[in-house]
Amino acid sequence: MHEHDSPHLHQSEPVKVLSVTRHRNGAQSTLEDEIVVEEPLEIRIDGRRYTATMRTPGEDDLLARGLLFPEGVIDDNDDIETLSQSTLCRELNQEIINLVDVTLHDSESIPAHLWERSLISNSSCGLCGKASIEALTTRVQPIKNDARFDSKKLCALIDKMRERQSLFERTGGLHAAGIFSSNGECLALYEDIGRHNATDKAIGFGLQNGWLPWTKSEACVLLVSGRASFEIVQKALVARIPIVAAVSAASSLAVELADANRQTLIGWLRPNGFTAYCGAGRLQHI
Amino acid sequence: MHEHDSPHLHQSEPVKVLSVTRHRNGAQSTLEDEIVVEEPLEIRIDGRRYTATMRTPGEDDLLARGLLFPEGVIDDNDDIETLSQSTLCRELNQEIINLVDVTLHDSESIPAHLWERSLISNSSCGLCGKASIEALTTRVQPIKNDARFDSKKLCALIDKMRERQSLFERTGGLHAAGIFSSNGECLALYEDIGRHNATDKAIGFGLQNGWLPWTKSEACVLLVSGRASFEIVQKALVARIPIVAAVSAASSLAVELADANRQTLIGWLRPNGFTAYCGAGRLQHI
Repeated sequence: MHEHDSPHLHQSEPVKVLSVTRHRNGAQSTLEDEIVVEEPLEIRIDGRRYTATMRTPGEDDLLARGLLFPEGVIDDNDDIETLSQSTLCRELNQEIINLVDVTLHDSESIPAHLWERSLISNSSCGLCGKASIEALTTRVQPIKNDARFDSKKLCALIDKMRERQSLFERTGGLHAAGIFSSNGECLALYEDIGRHNATDKAIGFGLQNGWLPWTKSEACVLLVSGRASFEIVQKALVARIPIVAAVSAASSLAVELADANRQTLIGWLRPNGFTAYCGAGRLQHI
Repeated sequence: MHEHDSPHLHQSEPVKVLSVTRHRNGAQSTLEDEIVVEEPLEIRIDGRRYTATMRTPGEDDLLARGLLFPEGVIDDNDDIETLSQSTLCRELNQEIINLVDVTLHDSESIPAHLWERSLISNSSCGLCGKASIEALTTRVQPIKNDARFDSKKLCALIDKMRERQSLFERTGGLHAAGIFSSNGECLALYEDIGRHNATDKAIGFGLQNGWLPWTKSEACVLLVSGRASFEIVQKALVARIPIVAAVSAASSLAVELADANRQTLIGWLRPNGFTAYCGAGRLQHI
């Protein structure tokens, strides 16, 4: 079985049409509405269940790659031997579509604690103050890339993302994550009901195509709709992305983690401005 | 040790002040900004780690109650023998504050699979189409409460929630979840960086005060900022809340689950209207 065998077959649609009742100023009407699909996805490694996540169907292969990478299960796209989607369930004689099964060249190398699938290390004392951040960030190193990013180009990214949020336009119910090059080109953009899933898909795409982890000398940006949480910053750090920008606010732990690792963290990105929580020196005002 | 011993001691603040750089129309300024605190919380049962979640500090005891209940670890507030927060870490000789340790009257009764802490049951074939929903909803039964809820009062809840979102006002970075009675009274409202955490805190409060699971003959509403996902509907169903309303859209699986269990699911709640995805018959137009 080859890695590229039918990765997109049998997927559910990301959007579904539903009959709903709308109330406006006391009047009531029935209409067809498009809503975003949310379904569970199980990720198996060598046939063993690794994790499950609620996600919007589509690009599940990228989601799996992008999820396994920041967690340290794979260090590289080449660590994956095969990735297959959809399996015949013998019990039900029915195809299981919400499943990605990954085989690794060396699954023995997965640390045992990763099978317990938690952001937080399972040490007896993982939550003592600062120790928690250290435990959470064992795979993260400071970003050395000092290339500047034009602040006007940064502000322009918000409209570029919106233009590409086709499912959001239709349903209003999706998050998006995009990766943009230093000249503002959109390298990847994905939508999902979960912001972290959208980020995983974008990182998975970069990983699959060999340009993540980011080692180029120019800067690049991960832009997420909604807020910048610790988890988003952590994923971007493992992918060596120097700038993370969010449409809404950042959390305290996201700022601490980004700041400790020389990453630029931006919130409230708008066409006319933004808030830089840390790493503002990477922005260039032309 | 009694359950009510110092549950609120040693907590971190939910909001932190940070110096940030703001860019507006090319001009740059430095100012103090309030940002929402995100920190990990570990929940232990009888000293054994059950789960960890990233949350905004505050009301961690309610979060723990509200998280354990929909998952089926406790059926009732009285199942908890003690609930203590903050423990001395002997290794570091330091207080661990991001920890809730729960002891149960009968921890033997916890099903083994719950220790694996996943929304999705660990059966070998949990993801075969509709089987996934069934696996996810073993503790859920259809809501029998048919009491009506005035649609004008429903629309008014959005402003009532906003008025009480004090942390959102300050940081823009928090979700909120509130429970409202049939006359529009706010019974509980909590804010957290995670929408599911805010919901857990509200449900935990109702559980602690004996009015959840909801058995009164009138209707009540769980209102969440943001979207209505499967997980939110599931939590509300276990708490027997007849109406779930969201400020933004609902997902497909949320609608399926609510519809299958005679729950009313509302999206896009605004002062002048809303979209009813299912259960519109519970709404009364006066």
